[in-house]
Amino acid sequence: MKLLKEKIVAEGKVLSDEILKVDAFLNHQLDPVLMKEIGAEFARRFADEKITKVLTIESSGIAPALMAALELGVPLIFARKRKSLTLRQNVYETKVFSFTKQEINTITISRDYLSFDDRVLIIDDFLANGQAAEGLIDLVKQAGAKVVGLGIVIEKSFQQGGQKLRESGIRIESLAEIGSLRNGEVTFLP
Amino acid sequence: MKLLKEKIVAEGKVLSDEILKVDAFLNHQLDPVLMKEIGAEFARRFADEKITKVLTIESSGIAPALMAALELGVPLIFARKRKSLTLRQNVYETKVFSFTKQEINTITISRDYLSFDDRVLIIDDFLANGQAAEGLIDLVKQAGAKVVGLGIVIEKSFQQGGQKLRESGIRIESLAEIGSLRNGEVTFLP
Repeated sequence: MKLLKEKIVAEGKVLSDEILKVDAFLNHQLDPVLMKEIGAEFARRFADEKITKVLTIESSGIAPALMAALELGVPLIFARKRKSLTLRQNVYETKVFSFTKQEINTITISRDYLSFDDRVLIIDDFLANGQAAEGLIDLVKQAGAKVVGLGIVIEKSFQQGGQKLRESGIRIESLAEIGSLRNGEVTFLP
Repeated sequence: MKLLKEKIVAEGKVLSDEILKVDAFLNHQLDPVLMKEIGAEFARRFADEKITKVLTIESSGIAPALMAALELGVPLIFARKRKSLTLRQNVYETKVFSFTKQEINTITISRDYLSFDDRVLIIDDFLANGQAAEGLIDLVKQAGAKVVGLGIVIEKSFQQGGQKLRESGIRIESLAEIGSLRNGEVTFLP
């Protein structure tokens, strides 16, 4: 997606060979027009999939996922992230390890909003090691519903999440695939 | 806002005299079309205010705030919420007590995205005791910027936040004002 890649080059900050900061338009300040374009692009790519729900995880997934859900005409659910494990009823839950924050979160969704006949598009801001995506896929499977695919705003293709998930048969559509962040420079996959 | 009030009556759950759960369309599952209408309504009410930024707080504020920002044609910033206070640079920060969770969060925004000449519309999902709103107002003031008003999706008018903030001179536009949740019933203010 050309507009997104231009934005990454213009406003993204390469903090190390592994870390790209996009606080200027995706993770802290949001560009609503770009979010709308991203949502429309996801909806276009998954148009034939008869999607009934979009699923994401708080907080940075919400904006692109909301715009995709609006375009697809279906509800959005955002999974909740919690550090502590307190007693909860009526939820699907799973554990997700965050490499960035070096902590384990329990993520949950209410059983009220996913059922076995749902066809779910999972959307997230980043795909790196794939932990969050795997957690969301697990929640959908617990509901007996179908994951039709994964819509990712920025994939760090030099990390292993995307490859692992594709090998497991998941369709992934990434709007910007980054091959390398070496030498402080963003290099996209062709 | 008629559509919102109907949705609250149809899908909201009164859990006690103080707690209304709207997980079905605002706090966990989101109705994108309703979010779009809410955003448009905020934009309409604050149309003359020459707003340059919309500010909210993760996570439930993001959806209505994004739609308002899109309609107003300005960027959105969402403040980050953190339980622990680790060293951070280049941020405005303040402490917010959550009555619901009985915990203190430190909320932050980067200094990069708010400046003294900004005219800021603050948007949040709920207004009850006003702690979150006061925290966001504090962040805007630290930047030397102007709060032009507060856009609230659901105000629990039987709690004190709204009154206190209005007395301090803040303009508040609430799309649904709840006078009481007694006897398991939602009663709106006229």
